Amino acid sequence: MTLQEILESVKSGSVSVEEAERILKKESYEEMGYAKLDTSRKARTGFAEVIYCSNKADEHLLNIFERLYREDGEVFGTRASQHQYELVKEKFPEVEYDPISRILKVEKKDKKRIGKIAVCSAGTADIPVAEEAAQTAEYFGTNVERIYDVGVSGMHRLFSRLETIQSANCVIAVAGMEGALASVMGGLVSRPVIAVPTSVGYGASMHGLSALLTMINSCANGIAVVNIDNGYGAGYLATQINRLAAGTDEKGN
Amino acid sequence: MTLQEILESVKSGSVSVEEAERILKKESYEEMGYAKLDTSRKARTGFAEVIYCSNKADEHLLNIFERLYREDGEVFGTRASQHQYELVKEKFPEVEYDPISRILKVEKKDKKRIGKIAVCSAGTADIPVAEEAAQTAEYFGTNVERIYDVGVSGMHRLFSRLETIQSANCVIAVAGMEGALASVMGGLVSRPVIAVPTSVGYGASMHGLSALLTMINSCANGIAVVNIDNGYGAGYLATQINRLAAGTDEKGN
Amino acid sequence: MTLQEILESVKSGSVSVEEAERILKKESYEEMGYAKLDTSRKARTGFAEVIYCSNKADEHLLNIFERLYREDGEVFGTRASQHQYELVKEKFPEVEYDPISRILKVEKKDKKRIGKIAVCSAGTADIPVAEEAAQTAEYFGTNVERIYDVGVSGMHRLFSRLETIQSANCVIAVAGMEGALASVMGGLVSRPVIAVPTSVGYGASMHGLSALLTMINSCANGIAVVNIDNGYGAGYLATQINRLAAGTDEKGN
Amino acid sequence: MTLQEILESVKSGSVSVEEAERILKKESYEEMGYAKLDTSRKARTGFAEVIYCSNKADEHLLNIFERLYREDGEVFGTRASQHQYELVKEKFPEVEYDPISRILKVEKKDKKRIGKIAVCSAGTADIPVAEEAAQTAEYFGTNVERIYDVGVSGMHRLFSRLETIQSANCVIAVAGMEGALASVMGGLVSRPVIAVPTSVGYGASMHGLSALLTMINSCANGIAVVNIDNGYGAGYLATQINRLAAGTDEKGN
Amino acid sequence: MTLQEILESVKSGSVSVEEAERILKKESYEEMGYAKLDTSRKARTGFAEVIYCSNKADEHLLNIFERLYREDGEVFGTRASQHQYELVKEKFPEVEYDPISRILKVEKKDKKRIGKIAVCSAGTADIPVAEEAAQTAEYFGTNVERIYDVGVSGMHRLFSRLETIQSANCVIAVAGMEGALASVMGGLVSRPVIAVPTSVGYGASMHGLSALLTMINSCANGIAVVNIDNGYGAGYLATQINRLAAGTDEKGN
Amino acid sequence: MTLQEILESVKSGSVSVEEAERILKKESYEEMGYAKLDTSRKARTGFAEVIYCSNKADEHLLNIFERLYREDGEVFGTRASQHQYELVKEKFPEVEYDPISRILKVEKKDKKRIGKIAVCSAGTADIPVAEEAAQTAEYFGTNVERIYDVGVSGMHRLFSRLETIQSANCVIAVAGMEGALASVMGGLVSRPVIAVPTSVGYGASMHGLSALLTMINSCANGIAVVNIDNGYGAGYLATQINRLAAGTDEKGN
Amino acid sequence: MTLQEILESVKSGSVSVEEAERILKKESYEEMGYAKLDTSRKARTGFAEVIYCSNKADEHLLNIFERLYREDGEVFGTRASQHQYELVKEKFPEVEYDPISRILKVEKKDKKRIGKIAVCSAGTADIPVAEEAAQTAEYFGTNVERIYDVGVSGMHRLFSRLETIQSANCVIAVAGMEGALASVMGGLVSRPVIAVPTSVGYGASMHGLSALLTMINSCANGIAVVNIDNGYGAGYLATQINRLAAGTDEKGN
Amino acid sequence: MTLQEILESVKSGSVSVEEAERILKKESYEEMGYAKLDTSRKARTGFAEVIYCSNKADEHLLNIFERLYREDGEVFGTRASQHQYELVKEKFPEVEYDPISRILKVEKKDKKRIGKIAVCSAGTADIPVAEEAAQTAEYFGTNVERIYDVGVSGMHRLFSRLETIQSANCVIAVAGMEGALASVMGGLVSRPVIAVPTSVGYGASMHGLSALLTMINSCANGIAVVNIDNGYGAGYLATQINRLAAGTDEKGN
Repeated sequence: MTLQEILESVKSGSVSVEEAERILKKESYEEMGYAKLDTSRKARTGFAEVIYCSNKADEHLLNIFERLYREDGEVFGTRASQHQYELVKEKFPEVEYDPISRILKVEKKDKKRIGKIAVCSAGTADIPVAEEAAQTAEYFGTNVERIYDVGVSGMHRLFSRLETIQSANCVIAVAGMEGALASVMGGLVSRPVIAVPTSVGYGASMHGLSALLTMINSCANGIAVVNIDNGYGAGYLATQINRLAAGTDEKGN
Repeated sequence: MTLQEILESVKSGSVSVEEAERILKKESYEEMGYAKLDTSRKARTGFAEVIYCSNKADEHLLNIFERLYREDGEVFGTRASQHQYELVKEKFPEVEYDPISRILKVEKKDKKRIGKIAVCSAGTADIPVAEEAAQTAEYFGTNVERIYDVGVSGMHRLFSRLETIQSANCVIAVAGMEGALASVMGGLVSRPVIAVPTSVGYGASMHGLSALLTMINSCANGIAVVNIDNGYGAGYLATQINRLAAGTDEKGN
Repeated sequence: MTLQEILESVKSGSVSVEEAERILKKESYEEMGYAKLDTSRKARTGFAEVIYCSNKADEHLLNIFERLYREDGEVFGTRASQHQYELVKEKFPEVEYDPISRILKVEKKDKKRIGKIAVCSAGTADIPVAEEAAQTAEYFGTNVERIYDVGVSGMHRLFSRLETIQSANCVIAVAGMEGALASVMGGLVSRPVIAVPTSVGYGASMHGLSALLTMINSCANGIAVVNIDNGYGAGYLATQINRLAAGTDEKGN
Repeated sequence: MTLQEILESVKSGSVSVEEAERILKKESYEEMGYAKLDTSRKARTGFAEVIYCSNKADEHLLNIFERLYREDGEVFGTRASQHQYELVKEKFPEVEYDPISRILKVEKKDKKRIGKIAVCSAGTADIPVAEEAAQTAEYFGTNVERIYDVGVSGMHRLFSRLETIQSANCVIAVAGMEGALASVMGGLVSRPVIAVPTSVGYGASMHGLSALLTMINSCANGIAVVNIDNGYGAGYLATQINRLAAGTDEKGN
Repeated sequence: MTLQEILESVKSGSVSVEEAERILKKESYEEMGYAKLDTSRKARTGFAEVIYCSNKADEHLLNIFERLYREDGEVFGTRASQHQYELVKEKFPEVEYDPISRILKVEKKDKKRIGKIAVCSAGTADIPVAEEAAQTAEYFGTNVERIYDVGVSGMHRLFSRLETIQSANCVIAVAGMEGALASVMGGLVSRPVIAVPTSVGYGASMHGLSALLTMINSCANGIAVVNIDNGYGAGYLATQINRLAAGTDEKGN
Repeated sequence: MTLQEILESVKSGSVSVEEAERILKKESYEEMGYAKLDTSRKARTGFAEVIYCSNKADEHLLNIFERLYREDGEVFGTRASQHQYELVKEKFPEVEYDPISRILKVEKKDKKRIGKIAVCSAGTADIPVAEEAAQTAEYFGTNVERIYDVGVSGMHRLFSRLETIQSANCVIAVAGMEGALASVMGGLVSRPVIAVPTSVGYGASMHGLSALLTMINSCANGIAVVNIDNGYGAGYLATQINRLAAGTDEKGN
Repeated sequence: MTLQEILESVKSGSVSVEEAERILKKESYEEMGYAKLDTSRKARTGFAEVIYCSNKADEHLLNIFERLYREDGEVFGTRASQHQYELVKEKFPEVEYDPISRILKVEKKDKKRIGKIAVCSAGTADIPVAEEAAQTAEYFGTNVERIYDVGVSGMHRLFSRLETIQSANCVIAVAGMEGALASVMGGLVSRPVIAVPTSVGYGASMHGLSALLTMINSCANGIAVVNIDNGYGAGYLATQINRLAAGTDEKGN
Repeated sequence: MTLQEILESVKSGSVSVEEAERILKKESYEEMGYAKLDTSRKARTGFAEVIYCSNKADEHLLNIFERLYREDGEVFGTRASQHQYELVKEKFPEVEYDPISRILKVEKKDKKRIGKIAVCSAGTADIPVAEEAAQTAEYFGTNVERIYDVGVSGMHRLFSRLETIQSANCVIAVAGMEGALASVMGGLVSRPVIAVPTSVGYGASMHGLSALLTMINSCANGIAVVNIDNGYGAGYLATQINRLAAGTDEKGN
């Protein structure tokens, strides 16, 4: 309903003043005291709310998990610990946990996936972040091609997989240390490249800041950068782009 | 031609060893001594090479301008000075210069534009960067909606234009100072947001680093960041996404 | 009008759907193309919109100055240059300019001032920022006591003025170099202290960042910090506090 | 007693030279060897001394706690650990501890609260800092409205509580990650906003520095910033402002 | 085989199209799913692939160790833990582990060493990094002279060993804290100096960044710098230089 | 007069209440509106007030110069420009100006100098700062030995002058770029070393921050650091130490 | 022996060529393989070598302790752990350990102390660093006055002890958080002030970097700065200055 | 002469005590007051002293130029301005100046060059730094292959020249912006790579710091880094390596 429609309905009496007030005040969330669950998010953005599990108190995690499950029949949590997996499993025995990506989820069966993105990692140590990106995109309905350990110190490995990479709607380049993979990728593909710096490295890598700066200063075009280790954000953005490319609406339909 | 096709042609004799060598060595650029013009770029990425004019020597600028003009019949230069405009104008009287965006170009007539992106700026001082983004996207064939001076200190201005913004395939959010516009935008739209920090500000803005950090740490999803003041990069990436959304191939066809 | 009142008016027909749409979309600004003047700001916050003159194009400055003058009968501009003063003076001969604070204004006669704040500077080089703060507060109706050159390297100067400082509703402490004045002040007064780091200094002062860090880390309580050289922001916030203390409403009435 | 009064008393003989010497030397603290308790603080500033418990040795904590309790009949400690709670509880069974805010206190019954401030948090992870601010303000006699989880990625949540926020004498905005809440708040309210960056975040949040920079560079007015995670400082400053607004003297009477 | 030779072979039929495709696609690595072992590295660069053990999963470490052992009959691992040593020892009882340098290796007997480099450390705390450099160079066939604890606070210690240092083909200078050893060394020797900053220090050493900056800004010539604590990189580079000096080819033959 | 003496005088009536009030309020400065000249400084610290000329307004500079001249019969100004020299010269024809150190002064004849300090510079580009230090110390009555261009890239130059350096009461080490001179000096002398980083250098010298960090992290003892380019501060501190060593009181008598 | 004397002795035959070679090569240290004990240090600088215990291997610590004890009959170690105390105690039952300052020492009886320095701390949390400074100075023969918890948030505490502070030959100011104590001290005393930033604080204190910057930028004169938490360095330098003031030679005799 | 030889000569009387004193004090420089020319440098290191012209006073530059010319018959100056060229030309009409590299030199005819190094630049804007490196190496007797504009955004340009690069004794990789060229090069060649970050870029390039960090964190081996824009240092170090490879002694003979 547009604003005009709501007002017309008020005028005609088909919507009460109170109801219109509630709609216009946008009280479309569930108050939990310590949290306000954004239950209108899926309608608004095409992505259901997910749980950032890190440091959540046990009780809060369980409550939020339950409410989101009730709402959607599936739940997606990131940065979960082994302890949180066991906690949730007691109540939701069907919950799955991947210790590499630290993703904790209950997922509906037989969800359809569309399009294709490529997730590339520079080294094996970058795989946890790459997997967070890949599994996020898959959860939101995107086909994912994984191409790992293709860092620039041995570029023949990257070139051998180039055709696969070039055929994706969007490429996620995950790299720590000096993060040069993103620039190299940007020069080789014609689709958007989402660069994810990781905290892999030591010394002057400054926990990923060096890789972030490399990627932000890239001399190649068609590259944009997300936060250090933010695999989730990259998978989310890649899904948005893939949906546009696949001709579905932005909510994936 | 795929690698297999080239080799088959060599075997059959339809392509000589020398020719195949040249193709496989990828000598697809024009050597100018001080520069190697990447003439295969348009075929490879769907975007012709452009000129970053800043600090180019007069003679180099003119030579490169001329060669690209000969190649494509149009040329696009960024960060050009008034002096460079006058220099180029002597040889190319049809050249256009916009002192706000500092774009210097010769553009073909009647180019078709597709889809739509929105370019938003937080303040009036961010407009030069916003215009660089907007005109870049337009040059590469994208329809652009400009929405300026919608910073978060008076958010009713942003809300009054929200429907226009939400209907774009991709949103570019240009902001200096604290750069909060990107996060707010990310929470309001369902399409990708490209955040461009600008060097507008003083004191602890550190020439745009503060805005960059704000945008990289955004709590909203679907946001990726380019370098400070990099309007060109944002317009380029938005064009890639718009082409995907518009159902054309990545080269805009 | 509250939301409920607007909706009741729509229902009863006393307000048309179109008018209600306009109100609810909050189109309370003046579109100038390159800017959106926030004309509802005074009603909303008790402070009229001011002009940050730095780097404004001549034509833009004049247009904005004129419209704000038309709206309020007075205008306040910060960071103005001598050139801008002369430009504006041609059209508004009554305009005043202070080359120290760089404030450019037309001010109504006989405005009333209430309460009292103290503006203290550590050194003489900090006076431009201190004056920006003091004159901002005065323009918005606050009595100001100036106490300059009371840095911590000769604290007897500060102690000799302590009673005056302690009697203010709010203290603004302006200091560059190491910025220790704010902490010392925080230990001596019972009212809020607004700390303004300045870019005065050299070497490791890093253009004011050192003073900012000193003030943010203060061991004394009742201190909050604004941006480097942000005299305007400090004068604004001090006015808000002074109004509360003076028992007027937050809009100064 | 003013300086003049003391001297007149010395002249008249009603105060001895020794007594006057002691007063003028301001020996108004209690020497504990490892610490000098500032027992005149409440008289001077309207706020009793509190204990920053973090890393205090057990014996020191107990001694200071005891002396402050003897002085005032109540004690307020911040950043206390569970271990410190148990330690103090053995001697002061009435002590209360909140593991979220980490506040440890003995508080007098039936203390009166005045005025009103609003404490807002961007996310649930910012609540420990927000609670430190809220409970500090309450301990010092301020009514507090808590509004949590209203970050800018879902702004309808914030708007639904806007009237409550706008009616407070002072707003505390607590946010980690990119810290955009403070700017948004500054544009929506007419009272002072105290911005508290938190160390919530990862990667380029640099333990709260990014949020601090965002808040310091805010394009909105009426905002000042305290140290990262400094809930106590924000609650203290908000109390000072609330007291001024409530028409009590700065010491809360 | 040069490109021309491959193509001639294809033309003549002595190499099949498929074989040529594989060679030209450079699929000269071993795909392990989570890793792509660069098995052509030794042929390409003269240095076999080594294992950076830090944070490798047990199973991955064992698998990679085994494959490299199978390939070369020896394996070199850096940054290994005691736990990893014990793990590998079960399968490869001949493995050696040095807890100082944290190097874990199986090395062929009777390998020949050539030339000479000098490895100098400023303090005893820098020895772990110095040993990583020294043992790396030795593993790759370089004679190493160790000169430890010759920091600039007691320079007679350095001068007493100067002749030895000056006779080396290349000098590695390992230093933490302020890292001045590299500059002093650069002024005293005529051969290349590789400077290795270490994370030894506290306070403003910022985990080695200060030493890195010292070394990068050196007023002496003939100095280049590697990452903080990167003993391996220094030993590798020194070996390259030593091989050139010793008149062997770059692969050590 | 001690506090006790003042009070006894009040009691006895030999000092009036008003006079005692003035003394105790420490109003021992000269109010100039824009500045508060600290005229008691020489009595308090043994050093007369000096003028930091940089960016002083012409009129202010002249007024302050005049008053200090009237007070002491001599004046010392730092960071003065050629323009300021000419300005002051018109009124004080005896004023001297050194364009290297940028010191502007009128100095009494036949002042006595005591003790000895050494001022060493690493390179010729550091001489302006070294001269500011040397001339400051001389003005305040210290004998100075200058030893320039003794940087660590050619240490035989330093060693040839070592005996002179070792005989000084205090050594000032002035160095830019990597600043290693301070550490080397600290290992060679038994007296205090005052390290002055300079902004000489480029690239990662970050305008002197690298040299500052080097000096702060020095592995040698007996070194303390002043701000980048702060020759004045070093000369002042060296004078304090030299006075102590020379057996005069701290005020040089 | 000067160089001239040595050469004359060689010429005359009273010193052999070998002996002169040894002297001139300055082989005045004890080679321990992993360390080179600088046994000539006391003769050269007046201070015996001390042990920086942090992270020393048990065996190395014991060996070095033993050799230094054999040399001097006393040993001074800093940054020692409880474990190291127990380790050393087994062999040297007379060893003393202070868990606050973490100093581990065997000290000769009845050592004489001269002069006086003052060690001031801003807060109680800074005492460990202050004690390292104080005990270092005492070990090297300096009388020390301790004045703790005199931070600038309650300056009456500092003023009550001012006469004691002003009578010292040198003042050490130890402060964390914003570190303003050093500047305030510099304005109040006429002797050198050694500023020691500490890592006490949180958030934007950046582990002491903020305090370091405050101190380096001090507007007061006569201040120099050592590394964060470097109590030892401050005590060493204060001893050098105290010896000069006390009229002993620089080696304390 | 070794130390032993000198002493034997003293003993035998063939060298006087005074002469030996002079030799051992290493007074092998020419004192010019403001500078100490290191005239023994060529003998010691194989490289004559050069002039860093930037900011040298006219008179100093001329004097130093003259003395070095007298010494060697040729002179090499870096970072010279057009003004300095004209200045020197008046006295030395044969002087040559290259405005790109800013090198000012008089060079002997018919100098022989040995070996080969490759100097690669990422972009055309990096050429000034690349030329400083190339011309430095040539002046010191090294054959140089220039390969410019081979940045990673169009890697076919680099691959087309790979064989030339791989045949060099040492590769200099010059790159600004994100500096990825060094890592890519490191993975492709078996000889040492000297990485030179440049200040080319804008925004988050932070005047070359980002490129420096990229290069320091490189995942490829055999790379070491010099200061930002330090072409001279790279050319010097490459010459050292080339001499070793060419089998000459380190002084090029």
